Amino acid sequence: VTDSLWCYRCDETYPRSAGARCDCGEPLWFDVDPTYDPARHADESGLGRYRDLLPVDELRGLTSAAGGTPLIRTDRLDDVAGCRIWVKDEGEHPTGSFKDRGSAVGVADVLARGRTAVGTVSHGNMAMSVAAHAAAAGLDCAVLVPADIPPERLAIIGQYDPEIIRVDGDYGRLYEVSIRIGERLDIDFLNSDVPLRVAGQKTTTLEVVDAFRPDAPDAIVMPVSSGGHASGAWKALRDLRACGALPSTPKLCFVQAAACDPVATAFRDGTETVSPVTGGETIAYSIANADPPSGARALAAARDTDGAVVSVDDDEIREARTRLARGAGLCVETASATTLAGARRLAAAGVLAPDDRVVLVATGSGFKESTATADAAAPSVPLAGLDATLAARFA
Amino acid sequence: VTDSLWCYRCDETYPRSAGARCDCGEPLWFDVDPTYDPARHADESGLGRYRDLLPVDELRGLTSAAGGTPLIRTDRLDDVAGCRIWVKDEGEHPTGSFKDRGSAVGVADVLARGRTAVGTVSHGNMAMSVAAHAAAAGLDCAVLVPADIPPERLAIIGQYDPEIIRVDGDYGRLYEVSIRIGERLDIDFLNSDVPLRVAGQKTTTLEVVDAFRPDAPDAIVMPVSSGGHASGAWKALRDLRACGALPSTPKLCFVQAAACDPVATAFRDGTETVSPVTGGETIAYSIANADPPSGARALAAARDTDGAVVSVDDDEIREARTRLARGAGLCVETASATTLAGARRLAAAGVLAPDDRVVLVATGSGFKESTATADAAAPSVPLAGLDATLAARFA
Repeated sequence: VTDSLWCYRCDETYPRSAGARCDCGEPLWFDVDPTYDPARHADESGLGRYRDLLPVDELRGLTSAAGGTPLIRTDRLDDVAGCRIWVKDEGEHPTGSFKDRGSAVGVADVLARGRTAVGTVSHGNMAMSVAAHAAAAGLDCAVLVPADIPPERLAIIGQYDPEIIRVDGDYGRLYEVSIRIGERLDIDFLNSDVPLRVAGQKTTTLEVVDAFRPDAPDAIVMPVSSGGHASGAWKALRDLRACGALPSTPKLCFVQAAACDPVATAFRDGTETVSPVTGGETIAYSIANADPPSGARALAAARDTDGAVVSVDDDEIREARTRLARGAGLCVETASATTLAGARRLAAAGVLAPDDRVVLVATGSGFKESTATADAAAPSVPLAGLDATLAARFA
Repeated sequence: VTDSLWCYRCDETYPRSAGARCDCGEPLWFDVDPTYDPARHADESGLGRYRDLLPVDELRGLTSAAGGTPLIRTDRLDDVAGCRIWVKDEGEHPTGSFKDRGSAVGVADVLARGRTAVGTVSHGNMAMSVAAHAAAAGLDCAVLVPADIPPERLAIIGQYDPEIIRVDGDYGRLYEVSIRIGERLDIDFLNSDVPLRVAGQKTTTLEVVDAFRPDAPDAIVMPVSSGGHASGAWKALRDLRACGALPSTPKLCFVQAAACDPVATAFRDGTETVSPVTGGETIAYSIANADPPSGARALAAARDTDGAVVSVDDDEIREARTRLARGAGLCVETASATTLAGARRLAAAGVLAPDDRVVLVATGSGFKESTATADAAAPSVPLAGLDATLAARFA
């Protein structure tokens, strides 16, 4: 990988020191040297397999544990969705979400450059992930959270012992403010769409494509929040195409919760930019980003790949979460269940065909959420009556 | 793999229909054909890599997602333990624990034989794991839990929609009773030390040994509860040795919570059998097995490999859990933290040397437990004051 950054919109190249944004305001990507051969490091585990497409080379300790998640064929969901479904189970990560991919690359880079502090703006998966990777590497870590964060959330982040600071004020503005302060104080903020994080997060899609070789899947469906992961998916496809290693282009389909869906709204409206919305409440709270910093980039990704951006309501999300558990044995984060609901909508609309091979990216584990609301009434029987009870139910 | 079962104590061979126990009362293992070549399926993911040592061949859907967990070098724990530490992160499984290995093999076998129902006796990791794998495979599933199971535990198992039956009576006796009833009703009970489950669970150790090739680690440290996983570790080493594929024999070291430590007591006392204890309360509740069905087998495993069985108290476990989070970025189940506390004891006692390469098997994810008790007090500052706050802490 080169050490330069590049803007997808202006085709401008910048030195790495330029930071996270193009002069046009759009986020930058690390540029890639188009000499990647998928077979070259195929025997390595985790992100090491993709070192030639990443801005870091050495992944050790916890950073070596990111990636390599299973892709699961879940045929019992085909009828639910209306197409052929695979699930990429990103919950199988050290901190239970895909965020470990970006944190691993970020922390590996910070270590390689001999720097000593990282930070992030998050009160969810990314906060845990950055704090865990910093702890493992012995780096100082600042986690900026909203002032009203619930104590249980604080405790789960706090176990890794970062410096947690509750910030009272416009939490949205913190995203850019933190990066600027960090530049001055030598704290590398690994926020959700900074180039290092997005470089790591493109490996989700690199793994998905590799799993289908010599073909490629027809579509990849992901939740979209900041747009960082979505833009990583697009960059992965572009990198592979540039290197002649993409068999065909999967449609990138992104899903939002209807209560807070600025990117889906822009997609429907046919605009090129994403306007902030006044987001409402949704059970998929972790993707409720009313002003996504990589929203326009995600929008461009969907259009460039002949994909789509849709939104689904809370009832659909709840139903999808149940289907994933009961039909596929997967306990996913509520926000991740949007993917199944979204695929169903897209199949109903004809964007996805019944024979299409569709990968749902389940971005995080449901075990970190206390959302188990199953009707788990269970009869109580004496030991001596077990035989008859089982016989009645299983005969 | 052959289809016959074998008793480690009597050297007796049985047909598979013999069930789970030798006439001597000890649990049986699946026998193995000593022609395994570690390189043969090395490019496969998950348990497929070990198909030649397993009683099943076809692993697909969720069963293909078991295994393949990362082995993480955690050098910041070396000083804590007094030896060189790696962690095998078994929490990175579809249901967050090593139990998915045994459930995968069990369910794959049930499908291969055209049977339709599985069951288990568990109110923790194994219950979730069997229920999830049954759901994914479309099998009926019976989960037998104690009558006084807390509702939140019921809900997390219930999400996969098994038939949960609360059994009022001696929960310990249920282990054998369920298997007998299951044989009559055609429900395959995948309890903690049945041959199928143990066959799957030996893959933890197969992966650990493979990760260190051409060497082997000096010791593997695991929590011990029923003894099923421990005996799987021993069987893995024996299989490899029989096939000429074990570079050297790692010491198998098992750890119990001091409040309920029948195997450690037997080890200290030098007995060959394990006597039931009246177990007390411990924060490592998920390994508090007062009458372990594979206790004697675990004991034999430790002695055969020049290992040990130790117990650690709740303060040591709590401290170890904190160290794993703050020093390695790993949120493990409380019971899994016993491994670090145990390694520390064993190093202090001279059983493990400072240069020894020691693998802690972190059997389950901490994200399923609401044990985050970190002192997560965090200052609240206005956005305008963030700069000064960060400067004061990170300068």
